[in-house]
Amino acid sequence: MASPIASAALKARVKRPSMLKQLCQPKDLLHHFPNGSYIGWSGFTGVGYPKKMPTYLADHVEQNNLQGKLRYSLFVGASSGAETENRWASLDMIERRTPHQVGKSIAKGINEGRINFFDKHLSMFPVDLVYGFYTKDKPGNKLDVVVVEATEILEDGSIVPGASVGATPELIQMADKIIIEVNTAIPSFKGLHDITMTDLPPRRKPYLIMGVEDRIGKTSIPIDTEKVVGVIESDYQDQTLPNSPADDTSKAIAGHLIEFFEHEVRHGRLPANLLPLQSGIGNIANAVIGGLADSSFKNLNVWTEVIQDTFLDLFDSGRLDFATATSIRFSPTGFERFYSNWESYENKLLLRSQQVSNSPEIIRRLGVIGMNTPVEVDMYAHANSTCVMGSRMLNGLGGSADFLRSSKYSIMHTPSTRPTKTDPHGVSCIVPMCTHVDQTEHDLDVIVTENGLADVRGLSPRERARVIIDKCAHDVYKPILTAYFDKAEYECLRKGMGHEPHLLWQAFDMHRALSEEGSMQKVKPW
Amino acid sequence: MASPIASAALKARVKRPSMLKQLCQPKDLLHHFPNGSYIGWSGFTGVGYPKKMPTYLADHVEQNNLQGKLRYSLFVGASSGAETENRWASLDMIERRTPHQVGKSIAKGINEGRINFFDKHLSMFPVDLVYGFYTKDKPGNKLDVVVVEATEILEDGSIVPGASVGATPELIQMADKIIIEVNTAIPSFKGLHDITMTDLPPRRKPYLIMGVEDRIGKTSIPIDTEKVVGVIESDYQDQTLPNSPADDTSKAIAGHLIEFFEHEVRHGRLPANLLPLQSGIGNIANAVIGGLADSSFKNLNVWTEVIQDTFLDLFDSGRLDFATATSIRFSPTGFERFYSNWESYENKLLLRSQQVSNSPEIIRRLGVIGMNTPVEVDMYAHANSTCVMGSRMLNGLGGSADFLRSSKYSIMHTPSTRPTKTDPHGVSCIVPMCTHVDQTEHDLDVIVTENGLADVRGLSPRERARVIIDKCAHDVYKPILTAYFDKAEYECLRKGMGHEPHLLWQAFDMHRALSEEGSMQKVKPW
Repeated sequence: MASPIASAALKARVKRPSMLKQLCQPKDLLHHFPNGSYIGWSGFTGVGYPKKMPTYLADHVEQNNLQGKLRYSLFVGASSGAETENRWASLDMIERRTPHQVGKSIAKGINEGRINFFDKHLSMFPVDLVYGFYTKDKPGNKLDVVVVEATEILEDGSIVPGASVGATPELIQMADKIIIEVNTAIPSFKGLHDITMTDLPPRRKPYLIMGVEDRIGKTSIPIDTEKVVGVIESDYQDQTLPNSPADDTSKAIAGHLIEFFEHEVRHGRLPANLLPLQSGIGNIANAVIGGLADSSFKNLNVWTEVIQDTFLDLFDSGRLDFATATSIRFSPTGFERFYSNWESYENKLLLRSQQVSNSPEIIRRLGVIGMNTPVEVDMYAHANSTCVMGSRMLNGLGGSADFLRSSKYSIMHTPSTRPTKTDPHGVSCIVPMCTHVDQTEHDLDVIVTENGLADVRGLSPRERARVIIDKCAHDVYKPILTAYFDKAEYECLRKGMGHEPHLLWQAFDMHRALSEEGSMQKVKPW
Repeated sequence: MASPIASAALKARVKRPSMLKQLCQPKDLLHHFPNGSYIGWSGFTGVGYPKKMPTYLADHVEQNNLQGKLRYSLFVGASSGAETENRWASLDMIERRTPHQVGKSIAKGINEGRINFFDKHLSMFPVDLVYGFYTKDKPGNKLDVVVVEATEILEDGSIVPGASVGATPELIQMADKIIIEVNTAIPSFKGLHDITMTDLPPRRKPYLIMGVEDRIGKTSIPIDTEKVVGVIESDYQDQTLPNSPADDTSKAIAGHLIEFFEHEVRHGRLPANLLPLQSGIGNIANAVIGGLADSSFKNLNVWTEVIQDTFLDLFDSGRLDFATATSIRFSPTGFERFYSNWESYENKLLLRSQQVSNSPEIIRRLGVIGMNTPVEVDMYAHANSTCVMGSRMLNGLGGSADFLRSSKYSIMHTPSTRPTKTDPHGVSCIVPMCTHVDQTEHDLDVIVTENGLADVRGLSPRERARVIIDKCAHDVYKPILTAYFDKAEYECLRKGMGHEPHLLWQAFDMHRALSEEGSMQKVKPW
């Protein structure tokens, strides 16, 4: 095969001459992808993912009508770009996917049984990968080929990732062959990462991180250069979408939370600059971070999984000292703002592997304030983060349990209701019993909706139920939920089984009403 | 009040003269226990708990018909002695209990609604206590009085605990007043503990433990001597019960597990001496540890919550190098054996606080093999560890999730069935959906019953269901569970919601048959 001629832009990014010699086109690498391969990609929350090779493979399948004939086990730290992962799913190219995903076609493939999806804590996925748990049925115990995006290749062959680190260090560790896509359409991110690899027990060391800004690793990911089978130039940016703006509901939730933080500071349970914040994805998370930008808190810190546009506002407000995560997932305008003001952010930002950003060890040590949005929460403070009606997978657990299980404050925020086609309040997000449990009652400290905030620390289940219904449920569901609780309490106490009262045969009746009549409000009297 | 004269035995144990001057009788301290007090006790799994003061208070209530008039919020690391905690419950002296308990009367009080029980991860209870979460509604934010057992008081006033550390360091940190019971009926445990206290974030440090034998703390718990309001001599041993012996079912489970460990060693996923073992309480745990004593494994290590009699056998077999935990809960004959062979065990054993023994940080770093027994497991690998029929509390979560959430191998072992009055297999421990979830599908790697072992690592829910039913369910339940799964899969895939197929309105029908007809076998066809 004839090597393409390296562009000046590429030469500026590839400091190791032997790597330039490996420059090639995606078509030259097709033979590394036989049907059934175990494939790893870099990427996390739709940034830092490889673009050219996956797109070429999709074109290849589409043009040659190979749908269902080239199927892969795909391992990516979290979600990849829609034009890669989701297109692969629509072309029936995914046999197995671990540990998270975003995209209509991929969710469809999972819920129609064509894709085996294994849904794991994002902090644990890379460790279990290195343990060999996901390759245990494969001779050699390796991933066949790992495709990673880099923004620079250094003299020693190590690579500088782009807007995410994710599970790339561990994918590289487990790779039999490596393909590097050097993205010249975005700046080099050199200096923005703190890279650590994963050792095996029994001789592992602590993560010596005592503050959000602490560096414990290198600025690039070491590569066994003998494993590199090709280098590709990539020429377009991460394809992100605009952020969902804060609405009145999410602003009300943010207001309750900020009031709660002020209350905790007043009572000496939080320092004046709070503790490191973790905030999920979505409009509530955006409202909370936006609310902090308008608050009186100063010298805030962020220890989180994903940094979004609103964090730029928080930086610019002067209230945020430092933020660290495993990815920066900005909108197109957010990336523009970030790239054109690089100097003002680069010393306040650090990207780590998802094993470190989501590490229970560090989250507990730092006393993180963890905040996430669930599908539903029940009156005893269990939460469903993954499966609608107990069965239909949305995106996966993500890092929700990594944070909520170990945070000092474990907070779930949700609108009290969601609309259905026929009822603007057809779904209550507060239910008698979650149809799927991802976060247990032993994990959550605070539940908050636009209606109010339930502080359930130290409360027994019956106490929790009363405060959650009272503070969080929507007015139209308060009588319904109270009636369930009252009857369950009466029946269960009478039988001497009233620690956490349930009417087990009716626990999902609200969901049944939703399914059969289009609204949980139509549930029959208990 | 007249101080009692210190016995020679007591003088030998109290090295600080001013403490000897505080020697008194329980009756002299009664006024420190007004109704409504927040009380802490040392103790964990029924060892190392205070004996004289709680017993005196129970006598006082009983003799003066004060049942229901002296009620307390009781904070103990885990369970205390039956003659204290359970007797208090039977005398209606417990208003609130956190975070674990054992005893018929206390479970009755909880399930009949007289005791507010807050059930928390044992590693997190002491931290949340120091955060002030449990005393947030109390002026001063302190526990009123903390009663701790010591086996020695040192010159600096610090105390050497007995057979458990539990949450004593943090209870002491949060105490307004302290009462020390010096137990002269058992030897001094000096040197057997590694004591660390709990700091507040944001400036916390890592636990620098890289091996089970690593010491990072002191051998005694520091005491603010100005807080000590009395010293009592305690004159009887921990009142433990004999261990439940291994039966055929538990031996079969142990056999499957040992075979699995050998398989993992052969495939290079475990070192030849395995990794630090965590083993719960009960006859299966005893059979597993007993099975290891008869195996060919050498140089084993233990990082666990509680050490029981079978560990003495494992030490004596020469296969166990070192064991560390937060308590040693031996049977009466086990304690006799331990005390009379002190020298052969003392350098192989270390007791730490429950925050350290159950620390997710250390459990993950060491790559612990975690093993626990649930109430029930469902076909998708969620487990119920606490609430029978979703409502009736047994003992609490304990450390199960501390270990299973962070272990390298997270293992649930259970008999495939349990008997009811009318059916020797009336209860299937493998069910379609758990009635209460404490461990999620994202946490469990292996499920094992006497029937076989299901290795569910990396499997999608539908794959998991097939292997769990096939390997773990009892033969009489296999067709029933398979029929549920087949129908659920058919219905859910058809509706495009088949990631984790459930028949939501029938998910608890087996429990309903148990409740209404005495056996899950009597469930109607799905």
